[in-house]
Amino acid sequence: MRAVTFQAPGEVLVEDVPEPRILDARDAIVRIEASGICGSDLHIYHGRVQIEPGFTIGHEYVGTVIATGDEVHELGVGDRVLGCFQTACGHCFFCRRGWFHKCDSSRTFGHGAALGSLQGTQAEQALVPNAELVLRRIPDGMSDDVALFAGDVMGTGYHAVVDSGLRPGDVAAVLGLGPVGLCAVQAARAVGASQVIAVDSVPERLRMAESFGAVPVHLSEGDPRGAAREATSGRGVDVCIDAVGDPRALELALRLTRKCGTVQTIGVYAERCEVHMGLLWIKALRLCSGHANVIGHVDSVLAMMSSGQLDPTPLVTNHMALDEAPEAYRLYDRREALKIVLRP
Amino acid sequence: MRAVTFQAPGEVLVEDVPEPRILDARDAIVRIEASGICGSDLHIYHGRVQIEPGFTIGHEYVGTVIATGDEVHELGVGDRVLGCFQTACGHCFFCRRGWFHKCDSSRTFGHGAALGSLQGTQAEQALVPNAELVLRRIPDGMSDDVALFAGDVMGTGYHAVVDSGLRPGDVAAVLGLGPVGLCAVQAARAVGASQVIAVDSVPERLRMAESFGAVPVHLSEGDPRGAAREATSGRGVDVCIDAVGDPRALELALRLTRKCGTVQTIGVYAERCEVHMGLLWIKALRLCSGHANVIGHVDSVLAMMSSGQLDPTPLVTNHMALDEAPEAYRLYDRREALKIVLRP
Amino acid sequence: MRAVTFQAPGEVLVEDVPEPRILDARDAIVRIEASGICGSDLHIYHGRVQIEPGFTIGHEYVGTVIATGDEVHELGVGDRVLGCFQTACGHCFFCRRGWFHKCDSSRTFGHGAALGSLQGTQAEQALVPNAELVLRRIPDGMSDDVALFAGDVMGTGYHAVVDSGLRPGDVAAVLGLGPVGLCAVQAARAVGASQVIAVDSVPERLRMAESFGAVPVHLSEGDPRGAAREATSGRGVDVCIDAVGDPRALELALRLTRKCGTVQTIGVYAERCEVHMGLLWIKALRLCSGHANVIGHVDSVLAMMSSGQLDPTPLVTNHMALDEAPEAYRLYDRREALKIVLRP
Amino acid sequence: MRAVTFQAPGEVLVEDVPEPRILDARDAIVRIEASGICGSDLHIYHGRVQIEPGFTIGHEYVGTVIATGDEVHELGVGDRVLGCFQTACGHCFFCRRGWFHKCDSSRTFGHGAALGSLQGTQAEQALVPNAELVLRRIPDGMSDDVALFAGDVMGTGYHAVVDSGLRPGDVAAVLGLGPVGLCAVQAARAVGASQVIAVDSVPERLRMAESFGAVPVHLSEGDPRGAAREATSGRGVDVCIDAVGDPRALELALRLTRKCGTVQTIGVYAERCEVHMGLLWIKALRLCSGHANVIGHVDSVLAMMSSGQLDPTPLVTNHMALDEAPEAYRLYDRREALKIVLRP
Repeated sequence: MRAVTFQAPGEVLVEDVPEPRILDARDAIVRIEASGICGSDLHIYHGRVQIEPGFTIGHEYVGTVIATGDEVHELGVGDRVLGCFQTACGHCFFCRRGWFHKCDSSRTFGHGAALGSLQGTQAEQALVPNAELVLRRIPDGMSDDVALFAGDVMGTGYHAVVDSGLRPGDVAAVLGLGPVGLCAVQAARAVGASQVIAVDSVPERLRMAESFGAVPVHLSEGDPRGAAREATSGRGVDVCIDAVGDPRALELALRLTRKCGTVQTIGVYAERCEVHMGLLWIKALRLCSGHANVIGHVDSVLAMMSSGQLDPTPLVTNHMALDEAPEAYRLYDRREALKIVLRP
Repeated sequence: MRAVTFQAPGEVLVEDVPEPRILDARDAIVRIEASGICGSDLHIYHGRVQIEPGFTIGHEYVGTVIATGDEVHELGVGDRVLGCFQTACGHCFFCRRGWFHKCDSSRTFGHGAALGSLQGTQAEQALVPNAELVLRRIPDGMSDDVALFAGDVMGTGYHAVVDSGLRPGDVAAVLGLGPVGLCAVQAARAVGASQVIAVDSVPERLRMAESFGAVPVHLSEGDPRGAAREATSGRGVDVCIDAVGDPRALELALRLTRKCGTVQTIGVYAERCEVHMGLLWIKALRLCSGHANVIGHVDSVLAMMSSGQLDPTPLVTNHMALDEAPEAYRLYDRREALKIVLRP
Repeated sequence: MRAVTFQAPGEVLVEDVPEPRILDARDAIVRIEASGICGSDLHIYHGRVQIEPGFTIGHEYVGTVIATGDEVHELGVGDRVLGCFQTACGHCFFCRRGWFHKCDSSRTFGHGAALGSLQGTQAEQALVPNAELVLRRIPDGMSDDVALFAGDVMGTGYHAVVDSGLRPGDVAAVLGLGPVGLCAVQAARAVGASQVIAVDSVPERLRMAESFGAVPVHLSEGDPRGAAREATSGRGVDVCIDAVGDPRALELALRLTRKCGTVQTIGVYAERCEVHMGLLWIKALRLCSGHANVIGHVDSVLAMMSSGQLDPTPLVTNHMALDEAPEAYRLYDRREALKIVLRP
Repeated sequence: MRAVTFQAPGEVLVEDVPEPRILDARDAIVRIEASGICGSDLHIYHGRVQIEPGFTIGHEYVGTVIATGDEVHELGVGDRVLGCFQTACGHCFFCRRGWFHKCDSSRTFGHGAALGSLQGTQAEQALVPNAELVLRRIPDGMSDDVALFAGDVMGTGYHAVVDSGLRPGDVAAVLGLGPVGLCAVQAARAVGASQVIAVDSVPERLRMAESFGAVPVHLSEGDPRGAAREATSGRGVDVCIDAVGDPRALELALRLTRKCGTVQTIGVYAERCEVHMGLLWIKALRLCSGHANVIGHVDSVLAMMSSGQLDPTPLVTNHMALDEAPEAYRLYDRREALKIVLRP
């Protein structure tokens, strides 16, 4: 079958790879009908996240079940499904507490040996372990483009908001309006944030955030701190979501947030950096971190997308054929697209 | 000044009463510009809640501050304000934990000696004790009709939803579509309920709930249990709000709710009644009860009304002059109005 | 092998039954070394809970793993283990949220076809489905008598306290000092209840509660309401645990509890009964119900028993041979024992 | 009256200062009977926290009410009381949510103009604003030495543990065994931590932690990471309390804590420093910070000290006369005392 494989930094290839086979009684095989390109794929593309040449990439996907292991009962051949970007065992210490994202034996699609040697989903088919936990049936009437987001980007936006403890009526700020930040804006509004201050320096992203109900503020040409004060009688925002993953974003988040508030860093941090701990301490802030518990949230996200409360449709800027993946990655790398959907 | 006073069951009068005076350094006096008639006022009107003849009634109000005690610093003469229906001391065991609705020395406007001898707000002026806790400035651009709801009915709808622990994406049911139930429908949707099943037997109320985003189900002509099952793959709703206060509503709530769900009885119960404890136990339900913590929620409710996420405007069916109060009560008693706003 | 089987109300038999066999890749077989008789077993013994004649009863157990299915990795033959009284699937809607006690396909040991046709543990061997979720290795140095409690009675006491939201420093009351009530007393103290008022009418049980750190109050000869007032400056207890399951206990619980407090009914209710909803409402109480989430709590309970913070040793009043089961049930039925441990 | 005043770095004086007078209807005056010297006093003593020469210092205190303003009703002359180290208004945005430690107009005793110009309590008398919120009656039979801790150090240990979300049965680590760290050890055990790993490099402090039920681990001669792994099957501790306030302690805390755990930095941070955000992110940790909400916790702490669950008695190493304050500060500065209690 055809699949997008990593070759070297800056180089992906569409090539023939073996079709997946059921290896475990809880596996399913999905015929992929749409697969997204995600910011994490760019880390691989740039060589910052290292994987084996020839490994199939991609981890956002919808499709149709074409085979199941003997212990898959809740799903069957022919079911139209979306999947989460990672798997979980369902019974370790962390899974028992519902922290599926930190499962001791989790595997991530399309990230090579380092994250469990699970072939990616930018392919004609994908093997999905522990299918009953990782896959969900797509609600009637939901498009591929919408469903695709439940298992990764929208799940991440939802997590950022819900895990922050935002209460209905609160004022939130979202720093960084890539797909995750924009989904966080939508989620914050949908769960009752009375105002969302959306900060970025790309005009189109600010406009899209505004169309999702946010107050757009340009990072350098606007005044994020002034906007936060104005929206809160000078107190600062109740919750600030750092969807960037950069010390400067974190510093701004610590500045924007009111005493006893929460800073949620959904953006990726990989190293040591300078943090204004004095500010964290004097304001009695709570700093939450880590990637999203998508498996834990996917039912709720699907329900809210099905009702239209969350709608990622505007984020999909490009549809391309699977065979056009090399061009798609170049386009995405030039930041000329928000979300590219590949179709085999 | 002119005020609406209770005289006898079925009889209220607009008469001259003495103007209020500042009695404590934390008092304020508000010139009332609009005051609502509430379901609780009907209990007094019917004599079920007994108060002294001649006592001024009413507890929903907006107006302008015309005098303040020496220790009122955050509000000043000329401020346009809305108020909560009850007061709280701010420092007792319950207030220290944020449970202002159960303050040991709370007083309720317009409910006679039994609830603290605090004259009501269906009058030209009202004395407001502990004004900084009980009053809030009305956000710019908010109408009297909207603001009026923050301190009672919408605060109650918000409380019912937030106190139930509803999570974004959950499915809720609301039983009873009087003003509180309709506000609960709005609040549930505004905080992310993916579906709200709204049950009543009055067609106009069902239509209004539908216009607020709910799935309307007629209590007897429809199939509430079927609707709950259909919305939840047969599990039952995550949260059910009983806005009726009747054993039959409670029984239905216990039936509609899924295992480990919450039944929130915001409707008033005053006596013993038969409850299906076996159902509560086998389903491991949580039953929450009591009136709303309006003081605790008023900031959030105002913020969400200001952003338009909560909008009680459609609930105001009648505007009448304060002097028409006797007619207004008769009208309300005949259930020909959802919310009547009296203007002095 | 030998096993205790139900024959008819009031009659159990020790007879030969077939040894269990591994049926599923996630099963384990445990050679039973100790099995308790529980209050729930009495319901069967009395015929109130109906099961098939000849069915093996019992659901509290410790022993040694003697066989495992192919997908059991975390446990192995020779491991000394204790087990939970029920199983869970680990991946349904309820399990995904950590509510293992309400798993859609849960099975309870020794309760016949109604609860999943899973043979009981008062036998020489037992088949344990989904072993990695249901069994735990016994910490070094812990006796059978102690370990036995983790999977049922102490797990229930822990659940009653933790699920009630009791905060360290709170005052609790426990109504009913059977094994579950006594475990709840211990758990309440161990998690920081500053006082526990323990109510019963059996002097020895009151004495044992006192030895666990409670203030013992005789139900009729003492003054439970006075004791609750005295311990709380007149407010009432923060949390009241009803370990009886009787409308009179529930009424007392509603009386003893302060405004905004929690009544936790861990005692079994099976039918409709009269409840003072007026009290629940005016005090804004929260009523939690249902049996314990033992699988969810078993790690924590084991850790606290291992550290000695929870110690059920004094509850074990009798050790008997498995073959003496008929006599053991008669003894237990006469309430002459708190906990009888049977050894094959 | 006599009072301990700051003069210059390294120099305090006992001198005559004017007696306090009631300035506000909610004030009380307390005749001080015991006042502690705290680590925060050392910051002033060293000149790191700058206050005006001649300002009275001290903020831990017990004594007897000798005068009250007109609106102080719950306390009266002759009441034996302990007080919190800071005041709160009781009605601002933060107080309404129970975050008294971040009250917009909080004042801290003995910290000069920067923290509200409130004279300290190392004196014969002290003025206490908003007395009903700041003072509590001392339970019968509680010594001055014990009561003194409720309003500062033990309140801080309790906060560190409770605010961390520690669940009964969890394993905690406490880094830094000064008075706050030792109180955190006690609190962690008292609320159900099954193990507490206590890390420091001072042998006596390790011994005291051990006597409080902790596993003592020498910072450099022992192996904190090994101890954390051993106590948790290799996972890491559920909660780690940094009672040091130093980047190295924070780094160790991030290392010791398991995925999805909490690091609670109750130790003071005042500046920027390097933080391993990569570790925080990959482990999905929650970092909580800030000083303690002592007013919010004081009722609970008093209850647990009254029951003996918390007992700071061993921490009091020295009693001295108020007039010996200069010598007491020198002693404390040389770290030859854990807690010195001054008596006028």
